[in-house]
Amino acid sequence: MAAAALTAHELIAEHRPTLDQALEAMRTRAYWSPHPEHPKAYGENGSLGMAEGKAAFDALLGGRLDLDQPGTDGWVGGEVSPYGIELGVTYPHADIDTLLPAMRAGQRAWRDAGAETRAVVCLEILKRISDRTHEFALAVMHTSGQAFMMAFQAGGPHAQDRGMEAVAYAYVEQVRTPDTAEWTKPQGKRDPLALTKQFTPVPRGIALLIGCNTFPTWNGYPGLFASLATGNAVLVKPHPRAVLPLALTVEVARKVLAEAGFDPNLVALAAERPGEGIAKTLATRPEIRIIDYTGSTAFGDWLEANARQAQVYTEKAGVNTVIVESTDDYKGMLSNLAFSVSLYSGQMCTTPQNFLVPRAGIPTEEGPKSYDEVVADLARAVDGLLGDDVRANALLGAIVNPDVKARVEAAAGLGEVALASREITNPDFPDAVVRTPVIVKLDGGKPDDQAVYMSECFGPVSFAVAVDSAAEAVELLRRTVREKGAMTVGAYTTSEEVEEAVREACLDEAAQLSLNLTGGVYVNQTAAFSDFHGSGGNPAANAALCDGAFVANRFRVVEIRSEVRAEA
Amino acid sequence: MAAAALTAHELIAEHRPTLDQALEAMRTRAYWSPHPEHPKAYGENGSLGMAEGKAAFDALLGGRLDLDQPGTDGWVGGEVSPYGIELGVTYPHADIDTLLPAMRAGQRAWRDAGAETRAVVCLEILKRISDRTHEFALAVMHTSGQAFMMAFQAGGPHAQDRGMEAVAYAYVEQVRTPDTAEWTKPQGKRDPLALTKQFTPVPRGIALLIGCNTFPTWNGYPGLFASLATGNAVLVKPHPRAVLPLALTVEVARKVLAEAGFDPNLVALAAERPGEGIAKTLATRPEIRIIDYTGSTAFGDWLEANARQAQVYTEKAGVNTVIVESTDDYKGMLSNLAFSVSLYSGQMCTTPQNFLVPRAGIPTEEGPKSYDEVVADLARAVDGLLGDDVRANALLGAIVNPDVKARVEAAAGLGEVALASREITNPDFPDAVVRTPVIVKLDGGKPDDQAVYMSECFGPVSFAVAVDSAAEAVELLRRTVREKGAMTVGAYTTSEEVEEAVREACLDEAAQLSLNLTGGVYVNQTAAFSDFHGSGGNPAANAALCDGAFVANRFRVVEIRSEVRAEA
Repeated sequence: MAAAALTAHELIAEHRPTLDQALEAMRTRAYWSPHPEHPKAYGENGSLGMAEGKAAFDALLGGRLDLDQPGTDGWVGGEVSPYGIELGVTYPHADIDTLLPAMRAGQRAWRDAGAETRAVVCLEILKRISDRTHEFALAVMHTSGQAFMMAFQAGGPHAQDRGMEAVAYAYVEQVRTPDTAEWTKPQGKRDPLALTKQFTPVPRGIALLIGCNTFPTWNGYPGLFASLATGNAVLVKPHPRAVLPLALTVEVARKVLAEAGFDPNLVALAAERPGEGIAKTLATRPEIRIIDYTGSTAFGDWLEANARQAQVYTEKAGVNTVIVESTDDYKGMLSNLAFSVSLYSGQMCTTPQNFLVPRAGIPTEEGPKSYDEVVADLARAVDGLLGDDVRANALLGAIVNPDVKARVEAAAGLGEVALASREITNPDFPDAVVRTPVIVKLDGGKPDDQAVYMSECFGPVSFAVAVDSAAEAVELLRRTVREKGAMTVGAYTTSEEVEEAVREACLDEAAQLSLNLTGGVYVNQTAAFSDFHGSGGNPAANAALCDGAFVANRFRVVEIRSEVRAEA
Repeated sequence: MAAAALTAHELIAEHRPTLDQALEAMRTRAYWSPHPEHPKAYGENGSLGMAEGKAAFDALLGGRLDLDQPGTDGWVGGEVSPYGIELGVTYPHADIDTLLPAMRAGQRAWRDAGAETRAVVCLEILKRISDRTHEFALAVMHTSGQAFMMAFQAGGPHAQDRGMEAVAYAYVEQVRTPDTAEWTKPQGKRDPLALTKQFTPVPRGIALLIGCNTFPTWNGYPGLFASLATGNAVLVKPHPRAVLPLALTVEVARKVLAEAGFDPNLVALAAERPGEGIAKTLATRPEIRIIDYTGSTAFGDWLEANARQAQVYTEKAGVNTVIVESTDDYKGMLSNLAFSVSLYSGQMCTTPQNFLVPRAGIPTEEGPKSYDEVVADLARAVDGLLGDDVRANALLGAIVNPDVKARVEAAAGLGEVALASREITNPDFPDAVVRTPVIVKLDGGKPDDQAVYMSECFGPVSFAVAVDSAAEAVELLRRTVREKGAMTVGAYTTSEEVEEAVREACLDEAAQLSLNLTGGVYVNQTAAFSDFHGSGGNPAANAALCDGAFVANRFRVVEIRSEVRAEA
């Protein structure tokens, strides 16, 4: 092996303090992030500024991203930005029978490097990605359809935070058992029994990351870095419409691994031809021992049932509920909820879908509001928030794909429309499909309506569901989470009794609850090192980002013990 | 709820120091156990001595163990000791549709008690069991067929150690996240965003423990206590031939729970009628969210494939290999191996089955030994160890069931017999079936022989497999672990190169390795707080006892967050 340009010693010196801060943040769950959220924070100390990031992104367009991977048997690509640009980037297509064995070749050295070195190599990868945040932001924007600022923050620092969190959890899990131990058991008057024991975290094999279209980096980094930090090689299979952000990630990872003296093939890309559908083939290969997946319930369930040789971590669909029972900050509630349903046109797994409102209305500090008033006021709040096209475009981004567009258009037929979806023009990107949210009134007790609101309607579609009482709302919440899953639950209430009932429902059904949010924090947002994303305990996801369970089964500990021999 | 006889405060005062010692032992992996191994250590400070334990056991025989469980619809039982005694104990048979809802009733209070209180209640249960170790020893002896001393140690202190280890892992996993956190995110010149967050470990639901015949307590306690300590109710479904030890465990647990002010129905027994086969029914009930199972590969695989609503932890069959390549302590090696194959008539999931010996022989400090000599000397060592009937009975115990007896008898037909199995009479229990181990010579390269040694032959049957070289032995070891799984691997070698190759094989295939054991530690034994039992990374088991992964997914953390409101 050639002398490494980056030594473990240097990397530890540079990144160990950050790792320790991450571990401390996870312990206290106080606010912490090493990755700046403001675009202007970049451009110095080796990081790309806005213009440089734009230039770097533009230079990628129409070109070939050659990752120098073994078994490359062609070039594929065909991403079209939801903003209308053809990216024109092509990526290596892999002969899997060549690539997978090549990925295994470097695993022994990666395993023997130990948990700390793996952690700091991962942090160096994240550092290089962070330096290119402006470039990544444009890659995320033009594959997911997120507006620039969201693509920048969620696709950049927040995704990097989630990756680092996974590295920190993986590190601390591996060092819970010492490398070696001396075990001496007294035997009364006889000599004690004495053993020397060595404990080595070993990887499961090759991990497969199946990326998603809407949050390629944010949803992809936890699994990628958790697997890599625990010694596994990682094969990245991006969504065909969102290849670029993960391909760039693979490029950075391969470069850093090589510079640190490891085999770059520990991380590789599996891009596919249109309609090739390689995920099923890859997921059931015997070499693949870990799978991380974000996407549809149907395919997530298929993976759990069929990829039996692997540990499978899935984030699937859910139906998110907000109970609106009472409030002492009616305007704050409305503007908070209006933002929640508008952000990225509701194309988040955490966006609220069903607003459960008592049909008798709700008490507020402005006096009682009828069900109709609440719904009309929410509609007005959304309208107000999105009344200015510049702000609307900055919040909504673009509709990610034709399926979402079709759902928005069909929503008006599902019930009485309280707020119609509007088309908005994006002057910078005239081909972008931009739509404001639609709000439809439904009756909680009607079977036909129930069939509508008990299914996930991914995109900017919300249902204002009239219910008989707070108790019915809580019961419906319970049933929704149990049967359909939920990534988030929200509730507005000034009643201790109702609050307690909602809390109990969420504790019983393992749903993450945001109570009475009226300010600048939204139910759809979670912060790494503090908030859990999903619970792993309801049908929406079988894992939470990030906790011990997310990392502990990605490696196993092998013990080698031998007798301590008496010295001659 | 009635005033509790045991307060959490008292239990914490009593057991917290032990919990802390357990946590420290798990961190250092040095020797530690709070449970004395010597039968004479009992009889004071409230624990039963030998005669009292015998009297307590005798008082159980022919009686009804009434656990006062809801939904009891009859009485079942029919255990016959492998030593020939009919136990005549009857147990409640449960109407599951009544019992399961009753088990859920107490879960909220158990959840709200928090991780520390749950841990110390579990430790109190273990303390009460420890006090009755002599009684439990006889219950284990007369269900598993283990000899008294082994039933005492493995069924008593070692099982209690494994239970406590699971409690300690469960505790520390739950307190990695604080109960509450204040999260304050700076917003430049604007007011910071501030949230109060509560984090609550919540149970998955009801856990099912499916017990085994040979080690009802040792293999049962880790899952039982890991699930209970993480807030789940636990339904114990014992093996029909080994009900008593787990029924007594359930009795103790129910009593302690009630005394501590919790619902005793958090732990319940599901005994079954002969041939009822309720495990499949229970395992697929929606209320059952966790399953711990020790037993056949066929049923373990069935559980993994069909109990999809549950987290399934299985210990199944494996084929354990010992490579005998060279040694500098030939006699020590032979006597160590002779003990390993004799202990409990080889009826351990950790007993070595295949001895791989180069056909050209092995170097030793006594000079070279041919393959035939090694096998003959091993046979002689076993004969010597078991030459005295009293000692033989004390080591072998009794054959647990007719299947094992049939396998021993059939073994002579599998190849050239190097050591024939002998019948031994147990003067105290004339009906006990006692057999010494059989050793059969096989050829590693012959397909017919391969079919024999590549299958688990549970019981006192070992194969001395002639191989062409050390390299072939290592390759065969790899293949055996990969295809059949292994709970243990042993190796004897003085060659650094061979040792390295064996180490690499075990690291690659996730197998636990004991090297050159020649003294009083045996490949089939592991010590809680220090050794891992299984790796969870090969087909023999999907979990290791005990590690973070064994506990981390038995609960989920629910976060409830709300805004910090400015003070009025």
